Amino acid sequence: MSDFAAHIDRELPRFHEELEAFLRIPSVSTDPGHAGDVRACANWVAEHVLAAGLHEAEVIDTEGHPIVVGERIHSEEAPTVLVYGHYDVQPSEPDELWTSPPFDPEVRDGRLYARGSIDDKGQVHMHIKALETRLASGADVPVNLKLVIEGEEEVGSRHLAAFLHEHAERLACDAILVSDTGMFSPELPCITTGLRGIVYTEINVHGPRSDLHSGTYGGAVVNPANALAAILAGLRDEHGRATVPGYYDAVRPISARERADLERLPMDEETLRMGVGAPALGGETGFSALERLWYRPTLDVNGLLSGFTGEGSKTVLPSHAMAKVSMRLVPDQDPAQVIEAFEARVRELAPDGVTIEIKRSHGGAPWVADTEHPIFDAASAALESGFGTPPAYIREGGSIPIVQEFEETFGAPALLIGFALPGCNMHAPDEWIDLGVYRKGIAALADLYGRLGAHLA
Amino acid sequence: MSDFAAHIDRELPRFHEELEAFLRIPSVSTDPGHAGDVRACANWVAEHVLAAGLHEAEVIDTEGHPIVVGERIHSEEAPTVLVYGHYDVQPSEPDELWTSPPFDPEVRDGRLYARGSIDDKGQVHMHIKALETRLASGADVPVNLKLVIEGEEEVGSRHLAAFLHEHAERLACDAILVSDTGMFSPELPCITTGLRGIVYTEINVHGPRSDLHSGTYGGAVVNPANALAAILAGLRDEHGRATVPGYYDAVRPISARERADLERLPMDEETLRMGVGAPALGGETGFSALERLWYRPTLDVNGLLSGFTGEGSKTVLPSHAMAKVSMRLVPDQDPAQVIEAFEARVRELAPDGVTIEIKRSHGGAPWVADTEHPIFDAASAALESGFGTPPAYIREGGSIPIVQEFEETFGAPALLIGFALPGCNMHAPDEWIDLGVYRKGIAALADLYGRLGAHLA
Repeated sequence: MSDFAAHIDRELPRFHEELEAFLRIPSVSTDPGHAGDVRACANWVAEHVLAAGLHEAEVIDTEGHPIVVGERIHSEEAPTVLVYGHYDVQPSEPDELWTSPPFDPEVRDGRLYARGSIDDKGQVHMHIKALETRLASGADVPVNLKLVIEGEEEVGSRHLAAFLHEHAERLACDAILVSDTGMFSPELPCITTGLRGIVYTEINVHGPRSDLHSGTYGGAVVNPANALAAILAGLRDEHGRATVPGYYDAVRPISARERADLERLPMDEETLRMGVGAPALGGETGFSALERLWYRPTLDVNGLLSGFTGEGSKTVLPSHAMAKVSMRLVPDQDPAQVIEAFEARVRELAPDGVTIEIKRSHGGAPWVADTEHPIFDAASAALESGFGTPPAYIREGGSIPIVQEFEETFGAPALLIGFALPGCNMHAPDEWIDLGVYRKGIAALADLYGRLGAHLA
Repeated sequence: MSDFAAHIDRELPRFHEELEAFLRIPSVSTDPGHAGDVRACANWVAEHVLAAGLHEAEVIDTEGHPIVVGERIHSEEAPTVLVYGHYDVQPSEPDELWTSPPFDPEVRDGRLYARGSIDDKGQVHMHIKALETRLASGADVPVNLKLVIEGEEEVGSRHLAAFLHEHAERLACDAILVSDTGMFSPELPCITTGLRGIVYTEINVHGPRSDLHSGTYGGAVVNPANALAAILAGLRDEHGRATVPGYYDAVRPISARERADLERLPMDEETLRMGVGAPALGGETGFSALERLWYRPTLDVNGLLSGFTGEGSKTVLPSHAMAKVSMRLVPDQDPAQVIEAFEARVRELAPDGVTIEIKRSHGGAPWVADTEHPIFDAASAALESGFGTPPAYIREGGSIPIVQEFEETFGAPALLIGFALPGCNMHAPDEWIDLGVYRKGIAALADLYGRLGAHLA
């Protein structure tokens, strides 16, 4: 271990320079005007993974932006680990809200500010430097290492699933290592062991054939906007719980380990409240904010539209009212079952006098890691070696659909070790990476590459 | 009476021709491109009221469209009746939905089709022809008759109130006669004795400072759209009644006369339901559709807006949700009291975690006629003479703010005798007037002008 730290400390100025060069390439995947930069960025990655010690690296075209694939084969018998990340970034707008230009990296107070610094170029770079560090320190990499670094994560990984299927044999692996998640504080490394799924719907309430005058007809014609409000209100009870039948039946209770880890986290709900700028937090009674975000499902209205919405007044009795409603699901809720029960409940809540039309927009199952898998022991030991403290298991409230895609394609477990700190402005102006975490994380990953051989064998 | 009928029947083809000429002028008040037509129409009215027997008629400019004022003085001692109507019309669009062109009147099946045929040119013309008929038949007009026919009713009577105040002395009167309302069937004349008032509000629910990701924050941050739905649902109970404290305290019970008249009306709720094209009617339990429309207050959502409302899905936890909510009020509810109680109730229903901002848009008190006033006896006798059956007292669900304006300005009662039939397409394509009602109505009004002298004396 001390060899790793010695190499990192000696080479850190160069690591920073390299990372800054990586961040200077404006690889904004959503903007066709940056397609050339995206490709240049892919080439940069391929070049640097080869320099770090991969045996092969290739920039493979897709119908969208290219994917960088690389490998370092140890032996036919050795287990294979696939590292996934992305080199594309979010747009930087509004640029005027950045303290320093988004593609001109600047260090301030131990943080490196730039678009992509933490999401996800910085984390990809940590893997590249971990490999270099391990090899330069004379340590072996006792696994077959494969790399898939895509350029379309910020636009929904549009061509990744097909790519994985097409190259399934070449990319076959025993574990998937993903660094695109967060940690709770700079001192506390984290492994993300669960993601929420989602069911997204649109409820349309239709009443009279056309908008009516609210004076002439108000009181005798059922108002679809009133009906929609009653339906939406009826979907939640006074404890903030969804009233969809069976909704909580498959929800896993919080385990002893998870509960212990929740207690380890330096969570301050007042900081969260101030961060979002709301008068108070809220949610399902009987749970803390983190429990609500990670371990409990939700039922949220994402949009409302009906009747007159301009300035002033129009006395319309609307013919139609619409709500977007989504549910964040947790293990082991089944999206298919939830949507059926949801639709039945909405229809049950609808009064006579309106008709209901429900559109299903998209869905995704929740994900939970099998933390009994030995890879978690390897990760825990490696993170403890890098940070001086064992990692906490945390979850994320959102979804990362490609995690399930990888697991299903390769029949291998995914390990989510991420280094984004709270407030790091992912997708916002002044995005940053903590340079202390960057350094410790490289050491931890260098250690992890060694341990995976034994734990996956 | 038979003299009136004889004159009308003899002159009816000319009456129709004149009305058609009146309807050919596209006096669309909302369209600046028709300003010349609006003025031409005012001149047409002035010319024809003089021809019918008024002693004076004047087209008076306002900051908007001109107002036609006319008078026929009987004597200093005689009571004065002011007839109000409007010569402007709604736009005709969409023109392609008209069976015959909107400004090229056509008779089909005893109805005259044209924009303005019933709202309100046809009814104004009935008054002009009633005056002509009375005088041509050798009968006296034993009242001082004053006429105010405006050109901005369809754009909110923008300059009428100021005009009435400015000319209050010249227009002073003992009763106001308005023909811009409806009747229930061609055989049943009606007097409108009540109008609903209104309180119109906008509820704004504010939660987090900006829109949040529903995965990252959903479950722990109070969602303003969910909160709004709960508030709106909480404003009504399971019987369709508003839960605003004291809301029903001042609501007048339906009188014996009103109840008897409701029973006389050939009301078919299935026809109403099919007319609006809703799967079922609804509303406050324990009341018929007409009772709900005329005698009961409402609480309707007129508009909803929050979060993402486009195609597909966006996983946003909105920072803001808005609803337009209006209440139609009935005698003797007080708009000022209602809005206070409403705001208090909304705040009571709001959960912690959001802030509430309520905008008051406009309000108007409900109106009810004093049907004990002798003018109602005169009107009843006159309508019975014209239609062969005494009138029913009905109400309207909407508001006609100028009715209160006239009553307050002149301290005189308003009498609302209107001839619009259900389904007459006011404000819609294929607007029509029933020519049988037109003929009987002229006879009834000719009779009424004679009776008012005695009843107002």
